[in-house]
Formats: sequence, structure tokens, C-alpha cells
Amino acid sequence: LVVIRYEDIGRAVREAEYAVRGPIVARAQELERQGRKIIYCNIGNPQSLGQRPITWVRQVLALAEYPELLDRAPAGLFPEDVVAMARSVLARSPHGLGTYTESKGFRFVREAVAEFIRARDGTAADPEAIFLTDGASKGVQSVLRILISDERDGIMIPIPQYPLYSATITLYGGAQVPYHLIERSEWRLSREILEGSFEAALAKGVRPRAICVINPGNPTGSVLDEANVETVLEFARARGLSVLADEVYQDNVWLPGDRFVSFASVLERRGMKDVSLFSFHSVSKGFLGECGHRGGYLECRNVPAPVMDEITKLQSISLCANSVGQIATYLLVRPPRPGDPSHALYVKERTEVLETLRRKAEMVERGLNAVPGIQCNRVAGAMYAFPRITLPPGVTDDEYCLALLEETGICVVPGSGFGQDPGTLHFRTTILPPMEEIEAVVKRIAGFHAAFAKRRGG
Amino acid sequence: LVVIRYEDIGRAVREAEYAVRGPIVARAQELERQGRKIIYCNIGNPQSLGQRPITWVRQVLALAEYPELLDRAPAGLFPEDVVAMARSVLARSPHGLGTYTESKGFRFVREAVAEFIRARDGTAADPEAIFLTDGASKGVQSVLRILISDERDGIMIPIPQYPLYSATITLYGGAQVPYHLIERSEWRLSREILEGSFEAALAKGVRPRAICVINPGNPTGSVLDEANVETVLEFARARGLSVLADEVYQDNVWLPGDRFVSFASVLERRGMKDVSLFSFHSVSKGFLGECGHRGGYLECRNVPAPVMDEITKLQSISLCANSVGQIATYLLVRPPRPGDPSHALYVKERTEVLETLRRKAEMVERGLNAVPGIQCNRVAGAMYAFPRITLPPGVTDDEYCLALLEETGICVVPGSGFGQDPGTLHFRTTILPPMEEIEAVVKRIAGFHAAFAKRRGG
Repeated sequence: LVVIRYEDIGRAVREAEYAVRGPIVARAQELERQGRKIIYCNIGNPQSLGQRPITWVRQVLALAEYPELLDRAPAGLFPEDVVAMARSVLARSPHGLGTYTESKGFRFVREAVAEFIRARDGTAADPEAIFLTDGASKGVQSVLRILISDERDGIMIPIPQYPLYSATITLYGGAQVPYHLIERSEWRLSREILEGSFEAALAKGVRPRAICVINPGNPTGSVLDEANVETVLEFARARGLSVLADEVYQDNVWLPGDRFVSFASVLERRGMKDVSLFSFHSVSKGFLGECGHRGGYLECRNVPAPVMDEITKLQSISLCANSVGQIATYLLVRPPRPGDPSHALYVKERTEVLETLRRKAEMVERGLNAVPGIQCNRVAGAMYAFPRITLPPGVTDDEYCLALLEETGICVVPGSGFGQDPGTLHFRTTILPPMEEIEAVVKRIAGFHAAFAKRRGG
Repeated sequence: LVVIRYEDIGRAVREAEYAVRGPIVARAQELERQGRKIIYCNIGNPQSLGQRPITWVRQVLALAEYPELLDRAPAGLFPEDVVAMARSVLARSPHGLGTYTESKGFRFVREAVAEFIRARDGTAADPEAIFLTDGASKGVQSVLRILISDERDGIMIPIPQYPLYSATITLYGGAQVPYHLIERSEWRLSREILEGSFEAALAKGVRPRAICVINPGNPTGSVLDEANVETVLEFARARGLSVLADEVYQDNVWLPGDRFVSFASVLERRGMKDVSLFSFHSVSKGFLGECGHRGGYLECRNVPAPVMDEITKLQSISLCANSVGQIATYLLVRPPRPGDPSHALYVKERTEVLETLRRKAEMVERGLNAVPGIQCNRVAGAMYAFPRITLPPGVTDDEYCLALLEETGICVVPGSGFGQDPGTLHFRTTILPPMEEIEAVVKRIAGFHAAFAKRRGG
């Protein structure tokens, strides 16, 4: 037999790991097919756990898909501003959603993204430095693709990190350069740690090219303040690194005193012209939660045109990001305005989603901290808790999470999938189960934890 | 300054070329911004040149985007089968279009694809061996990714070829192994040529891993018969190669005596268990022309489960194909049935699109062949003509296409972007301009060709 064999596949592909959809999730799906009820806390997929889409988004998308509705629908079926928005979208994408767009994405959407950034940060943005992507993931992959030439090119990633980064660096044959967030101080980072990580890479013959920061943090739930952002930028400047700022959770900040500070805003306030910055945003998180639509953008600052042209070329090889996701991105950055007929409903829905998430963040954090043997930092932002678990010697977090799944139907991801300090164990859970289930989930984790630790010799 | 520089980008990325959206297209967009009317014949983007979407597809997508319409729309606004289809889609994707799907795509869509293949080929297909992808391009890239480990891994590609293949092989650091289609016999391939190409690769230290076939052909417009398909499969078996069958133009067969023969059907009829086959299809071509929706699928045969698991993992790293494109793929493979309220309109629209394309194929072919110095093979399938042009010595097809653009506003792609026999020159044009423009387009090409050849010393 001469069919293709597993052994024929290159190492880079085989060694890439993506725990968020790894073996434990596969087992959960198997159990579900056997009739078990599974609570999927492994992935930030809000609508799969009952979060409802924002009406504004779906109404405009429906009209853009089927423009005949604009003429055929009876008056009042859609609010006037929805109709006006759909007409405007169709006027500016004159061939509709069925055509390949520019490789970078619809120009009018990139202009609206630039305006959104300007309004958010108070600083100009260039539509030609913005790329519309199939979710933020594809944007991250494009940037890593241009940064990594060979196995000596290092990319600094936080530990714990979102495994898109580790998997993609492995796939592209680069070197992961970990910098460890400080768990005991709410997963903050420090210049000292960044410098140590950089030096350790150099000592191994690796040349760091860029630093990735996820803010608000996935899986940590931390939110960086302006000083932290500045620390990263100053470090990047001193060491000649590009910065990848994963800001997909920018609307998910839960504590009253905190606020999201974008890397772009600090870069501009400091007048830094000598650090290349790549920022990412998405329609999948925040309050839209439109994961399935695969919409997002990448914004470049201080990136020379010939480098951006290479990103355009990468996008062009698979033509363009999907057009519906591009329009969803438009609707993210161009919401109804005060006084528009849809505004009140939009604000109500947004507030409900965000307030519910805020309460869940608090419930999960408090609930987990009440369990002896589980310690959880503040869930200050994003959609996850990443608690530390104390287990009997020799027991791994993989075993723990698999047993949790088998015994309770709750699917979480082992800390090993994100990286953790040696000698520590964690898991990541989303805060997304419906409000009425959250207490039960936490209770079941508590019950499981005690029994498991006891059984395994704790 | 320490910002990222073009020189820092790896060779593989810099050397990847994608002519379909290359410098001539960039120049066309520049001219358009200056107010010139450009006729884009560079890319198979039917709806951008006036082809209308199929109503069935857009009606179901509109309802799936905004399910409230199912209750709120007055009776009669949507046909009953459209409503039933939307309800069925929503029942089987119970959280709607806003969630990440399985990494492989919605299971019910994969089941429908398997049924579509069974009905087309009369042979069973396995939903678990089907992956839903963001257009066929992403499926091709996943397969090439697992086939290429290093620069000694060769991928056989036709010359001329669609540059997705050459660009992706370069990007992944593999070796292109060209096999030249025989222009004088309607771009047919022969066992002799395949063997010669294979041997030439071996002599250079390259180990061919797979052969790519595009049928119907892009850019050639040729359609393979069963004997041709068998030739490829026998060759692949003898040489231990995987086969990539790009079948996105399967509904675009224009000559009365021809019909599309899938690689899967021949593989099964010959009972070949020892050739791995990867087949691709898309919603972008055929009669849907839904390029912007980025929908498509990859089907694997004789591919071991551990290899398919690696493809799943690659898909999972960027989560999943966009959900709307997945549903568009569903609507491609599950059209209205005879007797359904939408059936008549669906058949009418499909027939109009295909008959119009058939007439355009003939008009373009005949028109180009009437120009002295241009010779065009039969446009038997797909959406392109790839005529050979005779130019004065020393003149390149790049110069020709750029001058054509500047002087007539017609944007075509030089043959060099697809590959051609040494000493020959070509360009690729789509057959997509509106019927009423086609004659004018061909006339302008004729006028330009004579004047250009004369001016440049012909």
C-alpha cells in the first residue's frame, strides 16, 4: 500500500498543538454522542451557551444577503436605520456579498475601522494599514508568517498563553520564547522578566523578533494598565522587537476601576515611531460573540509599505476574508447612534450581555476560590478563569481535567495547554455557562475536586 | 529606527507569487481610482461582472442570519420550502450561525456533501472524511501543508497552473515539479509527460509526494475525459503519489459531448485502495458564483485517520471555516427538489447562468481566434481562455498585458503567472464580462494586438 502515512507528515505540523480543541474536547464530543450532557467550558464560544446575537447585526446581515427584501418587506418589518444601513452597505459594495473583495477587505469597512480607532484612542488611523481577516486568528497567523524565517527566529509569548500562538510558531518553524506572567500579582508582567526571557533566548542562539501580548488576558483574565503597556513598548523599543497586541477582549473589562488601554494609544501618546505594532480585534468576543462569522481586523503602525504589501500578498493567495465577516466587522465598529430607531434596543442588548458576563466573572471567581485546593486570581477581563489547583504529587492536570469530564460532564482545558510555571497546575474554564447553571457547575467542580484529591492520595 | 524591514521577511514569503492579484491588477485599481473604467478579466469573480446570485441561496441565508424573520415575516414573503429549509438549518445548528462549528464543519452539512457525492458518482462517501473549508483554497493549502516537510518534497503541478499551487508550495518551502500540458492537443496530459516530469524531479534530488490536477482546467479551459483521469490515477499508483483533484469547475462544462468525470468516481470504479485522493469543491464557481462567501469542501479517500486528524488540527488552530460559507455549501449540495415551490425559479436561474456562460465561452474563443497572432484552444470548461499570442522577439507577455490595460482598460493576467512552455506567450482572460460587452472586449483586444505588434516591431 502506498497511501499517505502519518509518518510522512512534517514534524512542524505533527508537533503543533492546540489544546482548546484537543483530545479532551474530542472525548467530550464522544460522550455527547453517547447521550451525556456536556457543558463546554473549553472554548470562548458565547452563543453556543445561550448568549443571543445583537439584533442590529443580524438584521443588517439578513438584508445584505437578500437585498430584494429591501423592496419586498412590508414597512415596519425592519427599523429604518437598519434599512438605511443595509442600503449603504450595498451601495458601497456594489456587487453585494457574493464577490471577492479587495485582498485587504472592503475599503469602506477599513475606513470605518480607522474611524473607530480614532474615536477610541483619539489618534488617527490609516485605512491602508488595516486588513480585514477571517477572525483575529488569521491576522495573527499572517503577521507571524512574515516574522518567522527559520528556527532561530524567536517570538516572545506570555506563559500562560493562548495556544494559537504556540501552535502557529511551531507550524512556521520558529522558536517560542516564553516570558512568565507573575501569578501571585494577578498575572502582571515586569521589565525584569521580559529582559530575562530575552537574554535566555539569545543564550540559546535564538534571535527574538517580536513580543505577543494578550490584553485583556487569555487565559489569565488580567487587564493591563497603562504603565504595563508602556513597559512592553519600552522593552520592545530597547530590544528592536515588533509588538503583536491581541486586543480581542477589549470590551470585556469587568472591574470598576479598570479600563482597556490599547497599545496603539500608548504608542502614539509616547510618540514612538520606532516600534512596529500589529493590533488585532474580532467580532467573536466583546458583546457580539459572533464567532461563527469569522470577522476581525489587523491594524499596523510603523510598518513599512513593502512589509504590508507582503501581508496583502498572503491574504491574496486565498483571495480575501469572507465578505459577511467583513460586514459584521463593519457593524461592530459602526453601531446605531443615539436617536436612531435601533439605538435603544442595541444599548439594552449590549448592556445585558456585558452585565451578565460581569456577574458570571465574579461568580466563577468567587465560587472557585471557595473550593479548598483551588486558588483563582481576579477575573478582571476576558471570558476565562485560570485557577491554580493543588493536587497530590504525580497527578497531572490532564488527568484531572479528563476525570472532571468523565465524572461531571464539564469540559475544561488543562493548564498544560497554555503553559504554566514548573510545579504548578491549572485549568482554564470559560465564564460562559448560563447564569442559572454557573452555581451548579462550580458546585460540581468543588465536589469533584475533593473526591478526586482524596482518591488520588491527597 | 528598528521597525520591521522588508529584508527581515523570510525568502519563502517574499518569493511566493500570486499573479491573479499581482502588480497588473494593482495598476488597474490605481487607474480605476483615477476614474478609468476597468474591465476586470483577471479573476473568476462572476458576481462582480453582473452574474446574479441564486435566489434560493440568499433567501435561506437571510432567514438563517435573522431567524426572527421566520415568525415576523408575513406569509408569502418567502416560499414555503425556503422557510422549511431555514428551519431545518437552524434546528441542526441549534445555536445558529454565531458559534464556532466543529473544526471539520457542521456535521449535517458534511452528511449532505457525502450524499451529493454519492448521487453524483454512484459511490458512497464518508462524512468524517469531509472537511468544510473557507473556499477550496484553504482546503488545498491544508493538504499541501501536510504533504510538504522540506525542500526535497515535490508537488507535481500542471503548466499552466492556477498560481494558488505554486504560491503555496513556495510558501511552505517545498519544490514545484512541473508537468507540461500539451497545448497542441487541447491541453491534454499524457503518461509519458508525467513520467518524464517525475524522473526529472528525482534527478534533481526532489522526491515527488503528490500530483495536482485541475479539472476542468484553470487557466486552460480543458475538460479531462475518463481515460485521462485514469492515466493520472494509474501514474499516481505506480509512483506512490497522493492526488489533489481541484474540481471547483465541475458544473462548468460547455461542449455537448463532454461531461465532468470526478477523480473519486474513477478511483472507486477501478477499486483503487492504494492511492490517497483529496478532492476540492467550492461555492465560488459553477452557477452559484458565491466567491465572497468563502465556502467549499475537501473530501479525502484512502487517507488514514491519523492523517485526517492532522488536517482537523490545522483547521482547529484557526477554529473553523466561516459558518455562513458552510451553509452556502449546504445549499449548493442540497438544492430545491422537483415539486418544491422554489424549484422552477432555481432551475430557471441556474439554466440562465450556465447557458450565458456557455455562449460567452464560445464567443470569447471564436473572437480571439479571429485575431491574427492569437490562437486559442477550445474553452471546453471552467471560466477562462488562455490564448497563445505571437509577439515580436524580445517582447514579454507582462509588457503586453500592461499595455493592454493602459490602452483599453481590459485587465488580464500574463501567461507567465501560470507558467507556459519556453518560447511561448499567453494571457488568461475570464469569459465573465456581460454578454453585451464581450464583443466589444474582444474587438478592443484585436485592435490593440495589431497596433501593439506593429509598434513593437512585429
